[in-house]
Amino acid sequence: MEFPYGQDPGAPIRSGIPEHGRIPKYYAAKVEIAALLEELGEGEVLPAERELAVRFAVSRETLRQALRELILEGRLQRAGRGTVVAGPKMAQPLSLASYTEGVRDQGREPGRRLVSLDRFPCPPALAADLGLAVGDAVWHMERVLLADEERVGLESTYVAVARVPDLATDFNPDSSFYAYLHQRLGIGFGDADERLETVLATPREALLIGTPGALPMLLIHRLSRDAEGHPLERVRSLYRGDRFSFTTHLGTPAGG
Amino acid sequence: MEFPYGQDPGAPIRSGIPEHGRIPKYYAAKVEIAALLEELGEGEVLPAERELAVRFAVSRETLRQALRELILEGRLQRAGRGTVVAGPKMAQPLSLASYTEGVRDQGREPGRRLVSLDRFPCPPALAADLGLAVGDAVWHMERVLLADEERVGLESTYVAVARVPDLATDFNPDSSFYAYLHQRLGIGFGDADERLETVLATPREALLIGTPGALPMLLIHRLSRDAEGHPLERVRSLYRGDRFSFTTHLGTPAGG
Repeated sequence: MEFPYGQDPGAPIRSGIPEHGRIPKYYAAKVEIAALLEELGEGEVLPAERELAVRFAVSRETLRQALRELILEGRLQRAGRGTVVAGPKMAQPLSLASYTEGVRDQGREPGRRLVSLDRFPCPPALAADLGLAVGDAVWHMERVLLADEERVGLESTYVAVARVPDLATDFNPDSSFYAYLHQRLGIGFGDADERLETVLATPREALLIGTPGALPMLLIHRLSRDAEGHPLERVRSLYRGDRFSFTTHLGTPAGG
Repeated sequence: MEFPYGQDPGAPIRSGIPEHGRIPKYYAAKVEIAALLEELGEGEVLPAERELAVRFAVSRETLRQALRELILEGRLQRAGRGTVVAGPKMAQPLSLASYTEGVRDQGREPGRRLVSLDRFPCPPALAADLGLAVGDAVWHMERVLLADEERVGLESTYVAVARVPDLATDFNPDSSFYAYLHQRLGIGFGDADERLETVLATPREALLIGTPGALPMLLIHRLSRDAEGHPLERVRSLYRGDRFSFTTHLGTPAGG
């Protein structure tokens, strides 16, 4: 009994599945283009839409839908000269280490570009997270994340002004905030809680990162504590879903 | 100097950003509808499209674009009686513990439904992952993941037939595979490597999970090892991006 429970490939439960015959046209074209991308290899220019439409016997509109999905998934990238085969997604470790180290480990040059640095009175939810009183001064620092000068993400850091009073004048926003905390202020990281989800880029985010609107993004919410266990910062990191994946190593849970 | 580097809210670098005046109409409507969802609360039915279009002074087409994004993001859900305000995403821990435990911890009833169980000769990439010879027999078990009978994901497990020879006859596919390995075969999990990314559901996946096509999904690739460090299984777990988030606790890295 190699296919129990009536689950052999020809069994009824599979017949409602569009594996044979009922595949949408755009998806069939997508599969064929994906095979073509494998042949072409990273950085190669895709043939013109007109040529592809003829080759795969689909309308221009159907072809565009296939290309759109391949772009959203990061398998194709728009470039000045046309549409090119994208490289693999970056694999960034989920760790306390900074963005800087993760990108450098993958042989790319990390960078950041300041969008805004504001201070404002702490609202209730953030106060609870950071162990502050409502109305205490907090910094909001927003930076575009770069890898080899390519814009790949957007990071918002919220931290008490009392913790880093000279952030506005003393810190180079193109550099690592974690290195600054550690080397300049002697603040070490102890641990952090993260939550990861997929969201669509807002028009403002898409403009800042230079992506198509409504591109699926990976959003990481982080709450970090210092070595003494006191809340240190809340961070909202948005990464291009077409350029990033995240890796983690799981060990045996305590007591498990 | 509270706004260094020319970063005060009125400075030029902010002016190209559609924060004032240049917000796309659909997005302005989306923000207003999101506020309405907060007021209404989980499970409440959204007013009719016609009514909302009048209320927010947008065309039906513009309104639908806003609703589409809110659905993709899991803030609205289509239900039999119309469109309702969705609850928060489930927050599933990234851990060696099984899907079953994670869902149960959130007060929901986990379940699984077998799609297919096949055995096939191991291809080269999988052989390398699982420490098998090319052509060795492997199982591919595909199951829909349920939470309170709602279809929320799709899981493909690849494991050597030599490891679990009686999988087809001895295992109830509606139950936890990890519990089976442990309780029936005495195989414990040691550790695993995971990689997480966002992808679009294929038409077949969308049909199996019952989602709109091209919904952004969270895809987790896992390679697990047993307590002796031998590769045990490769798993491809696809979760609805509108229903799931993943959490992790980060400690100080070794040597960090």
